[in-house]
Amino acid sequence: MSDPKHHVEKPYLITRRLKPENQETPIQFIENDFISNNLFYRRNHFTYPKLTFSNYFLSINGLVTTPLLLSMHNILQLPSKTVEVVLECSGNKRSLFEPRVFGEQWGKGAMSQGVWKGVPLRTLLEISGIKEAAKEVVVEGYDFGVRTDLDKVFSYTRSLPLKNALHPDTIIAYEYNKQPLSFIHGFPFRLIVPQWYGMASVKWIKQISVIGSHFTGPYQNIDYMYYPNEENDDGAHPVTTINVNSTIQKPLDMARLNTGKHVIKGIAWTGKGCITKVEISKDNGSTWSEAQVYDSKSSYKWVSWSYEWDSVEKGIFTILSKATDSTGQTQPIKPYWNRNGYGYNAIDQIKVKVE
Amino acid sequence: MSDPKHHVEKPYLITRRLKPENQETPIQFIENDFISNNLFYRRNHFTYPKLTFSNYFLSINGLVTTPLLLSMHNILQLPSKTVEVVLECSGNKRSLFEPRVFGEQWGKGAMSQGVWKGVPLRTLLEISGIKEAAKEVVVEGYDFGVRTDLDKVFSYTRSLPLKNALHPDTIIAYEYNKQPLSFIHGFPFRLIVPQWYGMASVKWIKQISVIGSHFTGPYQNIDYMYYPNEENDDGAHPVTTINVNSTIQKPLDMARLNTGKHVIKGIAWTGKGCITKVEISKDNGSTWSEAQVYDSKSSYKWVSWSYEWDSVEKGIFTILSKATDSTGQTQPIKPYWNRNGYGYNAIDQIKVKVE
Repeated sequence: MSDPKHHVEKPYLITRRLKPENQETPIQFIENDFISNNLFYRRNHFTYPKLTFSNYFLSINGLVTTPLLLSMHNILQLPSKTVEVVLECSGNKRSLFEPRVFGEQWGKGAMSQGVWKGVPLRTLLEISGIKEAAKEVVVEGYDFGVRTDLDKVFSYTRSLPLKNALHPDTIIAYEYNKQPLSFIHGFPFRLIVPQWYGMASVKWIKQISVIGSHFTGPYQNIDYMYYPNEENDDGAHPVTTINVNSTIQKPLDMARLNTGKHVIKGIAWTGKGCITKVEISKDNGSTWSEAQVYDSKSSYKWVSWSYEWDSVEKGIFTILSKATDSTGQTQPIKPYWNRNGYGYNAIDQIKVKVE
Repeated sequence: MSDPKHHVEKPYLITRRLKPENQETPIQFIENDFISNNLFYRRNHFTYPKLTFSNYFLSINGLVTTPLLLSMHNILQLPSKTVEVVLECSGNKRSLFEPRVFGEQWGKGAMSQGVWKGVPLRTLLEISGIKEAAKEVVVEGYDFGVRTDLDKVFSYTRSLPLKNALHPDTIIAYEYNKQPLSFIHGFPFRLIVPQWYGMASVKWIKQISVIGSHFTGPYQNIDYMYYPNEENDDGAHPVTTINVNSTIQKPLDMARLNTGKHVIKGIAWTGKGCITKVEISKDNGSTWSEAQVYDSKSSYKWVSWSYEWDSVEKGIFTILSKATDSTGQTQPIKPYWNRNGYGYNAIDQIKVKVE
C-alpha cells in the first residue's frame, strides 16, 4: 500500500529525444542556484560511449614541448580550481523561433548550472609546454558516431582559441556539486568553458592536441554555426559565447491568476561581463520597471530576480523580462533568426489571465 | 564512480504544475499498450488529501433502499471486473488551440491507459437497491480545496447519469496493471468510467450518493463545460465522452530525417464505438493513405497504427493523422474551439525535414 506521506511532488527532466539522450531541465520549477545532477540537462550527439575507464590516460600532444600521458591520479594531484558556471545549450529556446527551425525542439530548459571543480587546462598546458606556432587547443571526447551528411564516423571534437584555452577558469572538471562527475555528464573529465555555449564543454575527454592552424571538424564548421539565411551559407559565423538572456519562471505561461499580489520571478545570465539590470513589463513592452536582482556580481552564474506585482485589474497581461549586461548588451525584441536555431535570446514572454 | 552500463535512457513525466501536481505522460516515447504507474499522467485539482485510510469505509447513501457502509474488505470480497481503458484528460492537447486558451498547457500526453480491476458500481447499487426517483449517482472524492471563484471549499465531486452508473464496465477500481492502486492515482478506490474524459473517474472515493435531481457542483456546472464563446456562456454544454482522436508518436515534430524508409507510428482512440480507420497524409492533407491499425476491436483502449514511408525526395513534409470510429465520427481539420480548452481532437500534425 502506498503511503501518502511519502509522495513528494517533484519535477523531472523533459524528454526531447532518447537515442541519443536529449532531455532538458524543468527550469520553471527550479528553485536552487545549483541544479542537482539528475535534473541537469542532457545533450548528447551520440549514444553514450561504451568504455570502461579503469585504464584511463589523458594524452596531451601536438605542438607541445613534452607530450604527456596523464593518469586520473596524476590529474587529481594537481592544484584544483572551482568555478560556478551556467552551461547553456546553444539550441536553448529553439522551439520559440518564428519561422520554426528544425532540430531538437528545446524549450527554455536546455541550461543548468552548478559548481565544477577541476584542473585548469592552462596548468596542463604549462606542464607540457606550448610551442610558439600554437594557435588552438583541440579537445576530443570519447563519444562518436556516423554523420550521415558526410557518411563518415566522427568523434565529438572541438577546438578553443589559445587565449580561451589558457584562461585560468577554463578547467578539466572532475567534480560537480562536490560529487565525482557522473558518467552521463562526462566522467572522468569534462572540459568546462565558462561563458561559452555548452557545445564547447566537451565530455569524456580522450585527448588534448595543440595545433598551429584553425580546426575544421564538423562540430565546429558545419554544426554550431549561425547561418542567417534559409537558402545559402552566406554570413555563416561560429557560435561562441552565451548571449545575454532571461527566463521568467513564475507565473507559468497561460496561467490563470486571482487579483492580488503575485511575485514575478526568474533568472538572467550572460556570456560577457555580468547582469546589471532586469526589467519587467506587464503591458507587452509599453512600460518597464526594474526587478530586484540578487547576487548580480557573479559573472559565470545566472542571477535570480523578482518583481512584486499587485494585479488589481482583471484581464489578460503579457509579461516580459529583459536583461542587460555590463557590456551594454540587452535582449532584443526579435531573436536573431538563423537556420539551425542557435543563440535565441529575445525578450522573454508569458501571458496570464487575471480573473 | 558511475557505471555506464547502468545508465538507461528513459523518459519522464512532463511537469505542468507541482501544486497541485499536474504532470503528463511522455506519450511520444511510450511503446507499450499499458502505461507503468510512474508514467501515468497526474491531474489533480488540489494538493493530495492527507488521510490515513486505516479506518476506511465507503458510504452508499441517498435514494437507496439500504444505505451501506462498506469496508475495504467487504468491497474486495465482491465479484470483480477487469477493464482495459484509456483515460484522457479533457484538457489534453489544450496548448494546441488557436487562439490560445488559458489553463494547464497540456501537450499531447494528458492521457494514459492500463488495466483496471475493481467492483462494478452497478454491483454496489444492486446491493443497496435504488429507489424509483433516482436520476444520478454522485461520487465524492476525499480531495478538496478552496475555489477562489466561489470563495468556498469544495470537494471534488461529480455525478453520472443512472444509465452510465449502471453500465457493467463502470467500476470502483482498486488495482491498476495487476498492482494495488497507488495512492496518487486514487487509493483505495477510484471510479473508472470508460469512454468518458478523465474528469469522470473520481479518485479517493469517499461516498456515493444516489440523487433524484441533476447534480450542479462546480466541477460539473462551471468547470468541464464547453463554452464556445469567449465573452459569454451561450451554448454551454457538459464535457462527457472522449472525442475520436489520434496522435503521431514518431517521427518527432520538427525532426530532421535522412531520405529512406521511415515508420510513421502512433495511437488512435475514441469514446464511442471503436477505431475503424487511421489515414496518413504526407502532403498536408492533399492525399491520404490508410495506416495499418492493430487490434482495432478493443473499444476502450487506444489502438496502435503504423505506416511505412519511403521518403525519396528531400524537402519539408507536413504529416497528418486522421482517425475515424465505428460511429462515423472523424477528426476535424480545425478543433472545436472553446474558452476553457476541452476536447481538442483536430487532425494531428507534425513537420519534418528530409535532407
